[in-house]
Amino acid sequence: MRCGPKPASLPARSRVAYIPDLMAATTAPTAANTDDIDRLRAIGREFHGRGWSLGTSSNYSVVVSRDPLELLITVSGKDKSALGRDDFVRVDAAGRPVDGSGRKSSAETLLHCTIADLVPHVGAVLHTHSVWGTILSGADLPRGAGRGRLRIEGFEMLKGLDGITTHDTFEDVPIFANTQDMTELAARIRGDFAVLDWSAPGRPPCHGFLLSRHGLYTWGRDLAAARRHIEIFEFLFECVARSRMLPAGSHVQQQQQQQQ
Amino acid sequence: MRCGPKPASLPARSRVAYIPDLMAATTAPTAANTDDIDRLRAIGREFHGRGWSLGTSSNYSVVVSRDPLELLITVSGKDKSALGRDDFVRVDAAGRPVDGSGRKSSAETLLHCTIADLVPHVGAVLHTHSVWGTILSGADLPRGAGRGRLRIEGFEMLKGLDGITTHDTFEDVPIFANTQDMTELAARIRGDFAVLDWSAPGRPPCHGFLLSRHGLYTWGRDLAAARRHIEIFEFLFECVARSRMLPAGSHVQQQQQQQQ
Amino acid sequence: MRCGPKPASLPARSRVAYIPDLMAATTAPTAANTDDIDRLRAIGREFHGRGWSLGTSSNYSVVVSRDPLELLITVSGKDKSALGRDDFVRVDAAGRPVDGSGRKSSAETLLHCTIADLVPHVGAVLHTHSVWGTILSGADLPRGAGRGRLRIEGFEMLKGLDGITTHDTFEDVPIFANTQDMTELAARIRGDFAVLDWSAPGRPPCHGFLLSRHGLYTWGRDLAAARRHIEIFEFLFECVARSRMLPAGSHVQQQQQQQQ
Amino acid sequence: MRCGPKPASLPARSRVAYIPDLMAATTAPTAANTDDIDRLRAIGREFHGRGWSLGTSSNYSVVVSRDPLELLITVSGKDKSALGRDDFVRVDAAGRPVDGSGRKSSAETLLHCTIADLVPHVGAVLHTHSVWGTILSGADLPRGAGRGRLRIEGFEMLKGLDGITTHDTFEDVPIFANTQDMTELAARIRGDFAVLDWSAPGRPPCHGFLLSRHGLYTWGRDLAAARRHIEIFEFLFECVARSRMLPAGSHVQQQQQQQQ
Repeated sequence: MRCGPKPASLPARSRVAYIPDLMAATTAPTAANTDDIDRLRAIGREFHGRGWSLGTSSNYSVVVSRDPLELLITVSGKDKSALGRDDFVRVDAAGRPVDGSGRKSSAETLLHCTIADLVPHVGAVLHTHSVWGTILSGADLPRGAGRGRLRIEGFEMLKGLDGITTHDTFEDVPIFANTQDMTELAARIRGDFAVLDWSAPGRPPCHGFLLSRHGLYTWGRDLAAARRHIEIFEFLFECVARSRMLPAGSHVQQQQQQQQ
Repeated sequence: MRCGPKPASLPARSRVAYIPDLMAATTAPTAANTDDIDRLRAIGREFHGRGWSLGTSSNYSVVVSRDPLELLITVSGKDKSALGRDDFVRVDAAGRPVDGSGRKSSAETLLHCTIADLVPHVGAVLHTHSVWGTILSGADLPRGAGRGRLRIEGFEMLKGLDGITTHDTFEDVPIFANTQDMTELAARIRGDFAVLDWSAPGRPPCHGFLLSRHGLYTWGRDLAAARRHIEIFEFLFECVARSRMLPAGSHVQQQQQQQQ
Repeated sequence: MRCGPKPASLPARSRVAYIPDLMAATTAPTAANTDDIDRLRAIGREFHGRGWSLGTSSNYSVVVSRDPLELLITVSGKDKSALGRDDFVRVDAAGRPVDGSGRKSSAETLLHCTIADLVPHVGAVLHTHSVWGTILSGADLPRGAGRGRLRIEGFEMLKGLDGITTHDTFEDVPIFANTQDMTELAARIRGDFAVLDWSAPGRPPCHGFLLSRHGLYTWGRDLAAARRHIEIFEFLFECVARSRMLPAGSHVQQQQQQQQ
Repeated sequence: MRCGPKPASLPARSRVAYIPDLMAATTAPTAANTDDIDRLRAIGREFHGRGWSLGTSSNYSVVVSRDPLELLITVSGKDKSALGRDDFVRVDAAGRPVDGSGRKSSAETLLHCTIADLVPHVGAVLHTHSVWGTILSGADLPRGAGRGRLRIEGFEMLKGLDGITTHDTFEDVPIFANTQDMTELAARIRGDFAVLDWSAPGRPPCHGFLLSRHGLYTWGRDLAAARRHIEIFEFLFECVARSRMLPAGSHVQQQQQQQQ
């Protein structure tokens, strides 16, 4: 369906319309926004409690319409442990409010829109700020580079990511250098992601990405799948970071000491 | 009762029938499956909350019949924080569903069956995925080896494992290289475990095993005992890993610095 | 508004009266002390649960009057997980009780008063004792020095501090050597802080300070803002400390090992 | 009151009777055992949740009579997260049951009795098993030694221990080599503690001790004070252990790197 690299471009309108054969499998947009809102509020309470959405960090969205693309997304600057029913706004594919509420969506709305536009089947996008994601994305982005990758290899828990069926593999999580220029960042991500083949069945090219010293973006067919991806990535980040902290061969040394 | 190594073999039927003298002490199979189910659901909520059963990882079983051997086990791919009453299936000693529900049990059902078959008195088998178990089982399996061991030595908390009555001992937790071929893995475990003398009174040959970069299997006479074993192992894994991270002799250096 | 260094002095009366142009923006003192008290009790339960206010450590205050300056502050020596309605006392700018309750305020009351006096717009001051703040403030204060600083650089979460709008910056958190002489410490802090320009719009000179091996002071326009600052600082402290523990270049080594 | 070392001896009867001037200040024995029991059950639920009393580890007691000395203590081998009203037994100064219940008290009852006997004013004794206490008590006991000490120095949180009024001090926590012979261990502790002057007003000689790779004993005038001591020690253990893990001078290196 995708025949080659696409030029980086700002999201004008949803390109999902060009992939009609995928539409059938797309999660039906939920008319009942109240349910979506309450589910997102529960995500906020949970993720705050787990240390992934502290302060006013993080933003969450669900795709409420595919044609045209529309997302329901958290309003900018809210404490995620106490989201109210009015702390959400409906935006179009370019991140512009379309519900007449006058609410301002998160500064990172454009990233949600870009993901929902580029990646087929996306029903929800979650962005969180965890300690492990923050320090690994800082450590593994080469100094001065615009992009890097965090390799996660050999863990059974990789199977918690959609389409992965074995531990005997690796997931390279793209790391993008952080910026406050969301238009530029959205274009950078679009440039990298548009060359990937998202339409092949089975395992997708990737399941999420990191912004360096900032946080994680992941997504899923619906909110439950996106939440599972957050949970899986956070577990894997902690495994990777703690494994690095574990002295290599230390168990052998320790055993030799004990035998002395 | 066991006179030597047994050849690795697939579980055809329960061998527990050959150990009638142990049967009397076996926990009586619970007819009230509803109670078992609710207890397993509570385990799921608790273990998810403690970070040991994230995503759709982990599986839990209880032995509901000994002759023939039958287990009640979690259905494949469920979020353990929200198990429903229908997320369980009854299987026979070969892991085949016997309750006509058409539900698919976890891919690792065969490991539960193998343990319940080989180890006398087992009333429940719990499999979890924790960070500490994951990284230690990766660190202590020699590269390319099919098996290794994690030694846990000198801790008072070892007494939380059945039959251990002193801290002045060690527990070698077998580590098996991970695989997606459950038939092969079950045979490998059976091969190793069948040569051990499980029928001697007192301390059993081992209380659990690790799959490398995957997780922990442990068991107990009943669900409470298996849960306690999980809790004890997780505590000990954390002690072992953090001890390795603690610089040796650092307290002496620090004290010398303070005295300068 | 501030034209140069001010001599260190004990807080005699509020100097906020000298900054009338700031008064308009000041949070209106809440008459309803009961609400303030219940909010501070909730902070105590939450912060105890998060490990930031263990034992009888920590103290919290809200500004209840600006002219004259008066604070409602926790009584000395209380378990923060179970603050009662009577565990608060109203004090003046010098930390003296003014509510006739005969209650003794925290020994560190003078620090709260100093902050509320020096920093415009402060509606609440929170002091906590966390593990990460304790060890970093010990590690980064040069031996024998009276002051030091903890640099926090390049994190997106810095934007959770009032007036910071980019990750591409650093926050130097002042560290003061600990003492039991609160009069001397208040004077030392006043001396350092009085030379800073707190009246400029936008980002303030700092958002909090550490007492070495002791804890964090931060503040905000109201209690919610101060609570957010605690949460942000704690997240950043953990990121800084864990980043230091992560072996530099370890991911490269690990990948090379994996490729062997 | 204590004029010199006392020979190590098994607790025959309470020696508190010899210190009548301290009796007045002693917490009055609570007749209402039901209240004590419910408070200890709450401690169990809380400490299990905080990871300090996993499996069937830990034991808790309150002094219910001083003359003769009697303690109410947890029954052996219970899950501390779910203590029932019958999971307690009343024992005398030698650890013998005196309530006719036929219940078996914890194997470590003798240590509780020894502490309650030797240390004036003790109203409650708490014994817990935490990860940090376990690994530090293992690291700081010299190999083969019967005793060692963990030095905790310079922390404000030391003031959470009874009678400590400044951070500018240290607490040496005695570490005793672990054993399963409680009679021998009680005698060893008695031997060390009896030479200390517990009757001087103000700060006591120590506030708790560690059993190597086993756990912490601490106490207090009443259960709330003993609980506070546990909380303070656990915080301090974590600070000490994590400080050792923090590379020395790492912040300077990191800053130099950042400036390159």
